[in-house]
Amino acid sequence: MADVKSDIEIARAAQKEPIQEIGGKLGIPNESLLPYGHDKAKISADFIAAQKGKNDGKLILVTAINPTPAGEGKTTTTVGLGDGLNRIGKKAVICIREASLGPCFGVKGGAAGGGYAQVVPMEDMNLHFTGDFHAITSAHNLLSAMIDNHIYWGNALNIDIRRVAWRRVMDMNDRALREIVCSLGGVANGFPREAGFDITVASEVMAILCLATDLEDLEKRLGNIIIGYRRDKTPVFCRDIKADGAMAVLLKDAMQPNLVQTLENNPAFVHGGPFANIAHGCNSVVATTTALKLGDYVVTEAGFGADLGAEKFFDIKCRKADLKPDVAVIVATVRAMKMNGGVKKEDLGAENVEAVVQGCANLGRHIQNVKKFGVPVVVAVNHFISDTDAEIRAVQDYVETLGTEAILCKHWAEGSAGIEALSQKVVELAESGASQFAPLYADDMPLFEKIETVAKSIYHASEVIADKSVRDQLRQWEEQGYGNLPVCMAKTQYSFSTDPNLRGAPTDHAVPIREVRLSAGAGFIVVICGQIMTMPGLPKVPSSEKIHLNEQGDIEGLF
Amino acid sequence: MADVKSDIEIARAAQKEPIQEIGGKLGIPNESLLPYGHDKAKISADFIAAQKGKNDGKLILVTAINPTPAGEGKTTTTVGLGDGLNRIGKKAVICIREASLGPCFGVKGGAAGGGYAQVVPMEDMNLHFTGDFHAITSAHNLLSAMIDNHIYWGNALNIDIRRVAWRRVMDMNDRALREIVCSLGGVANGFPREAGFDITVASEVMAILCLATDLEDLEKRLGNIIIGYRRDKTPVFCRDIKADGAMAVLLKDAMQPNLVQTLENNPAFVHGGPFANIAHGCNSVVATTTALKLGDYVVTEAGFGADLGAEKFFDIKCRKADLKPDVAVIVATVRAMKMNGGVKKEDLGAENVEAVVQGCANLGRHIQNVKKFGVPVVVAVNHFISDTDAEIRAVQDYVETLGTEAILCKHWAEGSAGIEALSQKVVELAESGASQFAPLYADDMPLFEKIETVAKSIYHASEVIADKSVRDQLRQWEEQGYGNLPVCMAKTQYSFSTDPNLRGAPTDHAVPIREVRLSAGAGFIVVICGQIMTMPGLPKVPSSEKIHLNEQGDIEGLF
Repeated sequence: MADVKSDIEIARAAQKEPIQEIGGKLGIPNESLLPYGHDKAKISADFIAAQKGKNDGKLILVTAINPTPAGEGKTTTTVGLGDGLNRIGKKAVICIREASLGPCFGVKGGAAGGGYAQVVPMEDMNLHFTGDFHAITSAHNLLSAMIDNHIYWGNALNIDIRRVAWRRVMDMNDRALREIVCSLGGVANGFPREAGFDITVASEVMAILCLATDLEDLEKRLGNIIIGYRRDKTPVFCRDIKADGAMAVLLKDAMQPNLVQTLENNPAFVHGGPFANIAHGCNSVVATTTALKLGDYVVTEAGFGADLGAEKFFDIKCRKADLKPDVAVIVATVRAMKMNGGVKKEDLGAENVEAVVQGCANLGRHIQNVKKFGVPVVVAVNHFISDTDAEIRAVQDYVETLGTEAILCKHWAEGSAGIEALSQKVVELAESGASQFAPLYADDMPLFEKIETVAKSIYHASEVIADKSVRDQLRQWEEQGYGNLPVCMAKTQYSFSTDPNLRGAPTDHAVPIREVRLSAGAGFIVVICGQIMTMPGLPKVPSSEKIHLNEQGDIEGLF
Repeated sequence: MADVKSDIEIARAAQKEPIQEIGGKLGIPNESLLPYGHDKAKISADFIAAQKGKNDGKLILVTAINPTPAGEGKTTTTVGLGDGLNRIGKKAVICIREASLGPCFGVKGGAAGGGYAQVVPMEDMNLHFTGDFHAITSAHNLLSAMIDNHIYWGNALNIDIRRVAWRRVMDMNDRALREIVCSLGGVANGFPREAGFDITVASEVMAILCLATDLEDLEKRLGNIIIGYRRDKTPVFCRDIKADGAMAVLLKDAMQPNLVQTLENNPAFVHGGPFANIAHGCNSVVATTTALKLGDYVVTEAGFGADLGAEKFFDIKCRKADLKPDVAVIVATVRAMKMNGGVKKEDLGAENVEAVVQGCANLGRHIQNVKKFGVPVVVAVNHFISDTDAEIRAVQDYVETLGTEAILCKHWAEGSAGIEALSQKVVELAESGASQFAPLYADDMPLFEKIETVAKSIYHASEVIADKSVRDQLRQWEEQGYGNLPVCMAKTQYSFSTDPNLRGAPTDHAVPIREVRLSAGAGFIVVICGQIMTMPGLPKVPSSEKIHLNEQGDIEGLF
């Protein structure tokens, strides 16, 4: 194992091409690339607008089983598949999410892929990158400041200061800011009230930026944000505060997708990064739709496992952006199958075919779920060195019983050479025209029924439990014209159920709804099942204690 | 007046050259320029390090009389003089500060210069620019989060939670965050305590970034920040929290100066922007020292009037960075002289030579003050259309009585063609070798004597009033080894005194010290005289209500 290089060593050794050359591969002229250093660029809004009317390439979703501590490698597979498609002669573009800054200082940075399937420059992508998240933080907090300023100067809109729903955000893990009292210190500082901060990726502005089709749509959605309520419970909108225009100005550059490259010098769009629980967990619509105009194949991913990520990708992003996915790749690993089969993390090194077989139930349900959306499925078995042939064979045999193929992929160790078979299969499925994509439920289904449909059809729950207050709230929103919105489920990513310890493929469980929230700007109803943390904390020994610049000025400790 | 174009119209019509061409004029190769779009770039740390040992150009400080509501045009004159020096064949570089984002949403954005003496791209410079301030915000707040996290996990350093001195920052005008109680909501969120936010430009991290000579010095200074005190009042440092390394990583890119251009395509460094009251109010040392290696002339400015800005430039920045300014230009206007002479703003249009003469006392004292530092002085009379010949002549006659020349400058209307005479005079003074620069006081003077020296010598105060607690605090810092630091006076910029309404050249006033603060990382003692606002609020009708994108996607309402 001594010669296995770390992700950061591999990334630093990358032979990057100038970003103009990467753009050139997609036909983007230099003047339409706004460089950020020599290896990052934004694609100009003008160029994007000019692509309208061109044909779209094929859209491939990479999703996964429920995440386990063993790690599945969804992003690694997304990057690897993009490289693999390019290797077999297809013009493929990767679309992934941007990383959040805050969590990098808690545990080690989440790199963009791993091994020989990575996107670079890795350090930048884990730090400020092109400033998109900072712009979102600024836009969000401008609205917050304007709300308290409005109240300070007389509160003409009659906002109930106990019902200000719009919090503040910071791209930092800072538990001390979760719940605060602001405006203390006397008359000059306003009216004291309870407030708090979420992490930036939890901002509705993030979700909006990722769903907006252009700047005009962005501004309209920003205006639709509900910032709070009056005493009579009527909503007050962002447009009432007149913040939408300035917020759009702050987001003008951030709306333009970022172009970087893989280790194999293939184009990757890295843009947006909403939470996968209280939001939809996908990269931006603008990045995906632009990539579809420029590439023959677009490989993208969705957050968490397919029960949350793929469902939201299909029911929120594809529905709203009119996307037609052609193939879905479900990433699984032998190790994760074993954990789903009851093996502890420390025992993963030992062969255990029986546990693999047992754990496959989780994978099997995800396969069947994705097929409900009419999209052809292939399974990528992301290879680990400790996997035995018998274990791999067990996964493949199981998947075959569902009429699906599971293909062993070695992109982590070998780059695109290790993922040719999957790439060929993806092309075959995409070109077959087999996809008959449709969302799971119709727009006009009542909101509670939408929740039940997802819970029963995807989670295999027997019932959805909700207080009268939740049901009344949903009915009220329907009366107010929000009944046609999709639902955005916020539940644990570790299980089909709302109990994170229930691995495998549980059935007959109940899904209790704790709270529902209207994201009127983003355009979905958030359905909160269980505890959802929107502002993380730092661990006892945060990684930030180790992060530093070495004598050569290189960053150490971030990975 | 119908054909007078607005600043933004002029800026948008600019014929910008690619930033690589601007860099080329200073001998910066393309690979050492890190572009941000096509018209902004950072200069790489490697290139900067390689300039060591080269000869320095001449350093010109542009400062001003006490600001009045009439506007003086200090930045406009800095930009104009840079263009003027280039016009007469000198290789000149401009060094100015970056604008703060927050205040742009309160009142109209402070552009970089005005008329035909501007730095572009103007919109970017008033918004996110290259992200430096966002990086400072992140670094500052990472330390804040790590402090509360340290307390949460057991407080091994025994920080007194009532004596946490390190607040949080946001680049926003948000009075609701001035005073808060954080960590509410129960055990999981920490220990409730009083806290608050300042605006980012007030962060000590900003001052540190602007005084650090390189990344190593930056990290050392960050480590020296005092974040709070124990119950026994011993200080706890940033390095005790182990945040300095990660903060330096967050600031790595921000430490590299930004290159942009004037309307006449001359190079301008725009880097850093500390407050001119609780900090020293100058652009970064790295930008200035790098510009001195690359240009024959470097034109820079300092915040507020010369009583605050020039004094701090000389006593803090030049002292610490071993800079030797060659010439000081004091900007004055006929209108400001009239206001200092008692004329109200609405009456400025009418000729009033007598008021001009009376108001000249303010200018006169600034001239004499700057000469105390051994630096030759020339006055730039920044021309306004309403100025009469007699009024201009009155200023010039007055200045001549002090053995100094006042030169009429029309760069606002004419660009470099309007400022040739001043440019020639600046060259003459710089080349004469007349400058005998020395700071006002020696490093080893006791702290209270330093304060008295500034107050009496520069402000012409008769005494400094300070409670025993303030004097004791200063003595304690001397015992702890901080006695050799310079003092950073925080007082109103509108008067030599601490009374903002006392225009002209008041004498025999008292300077009361309300509070002293140790900025151990930046390396100065802040002396607060009167109310200093470190988190502004928004006005009743903030400019953000008007800021928006028009149908062409251009920004409206920012200027």
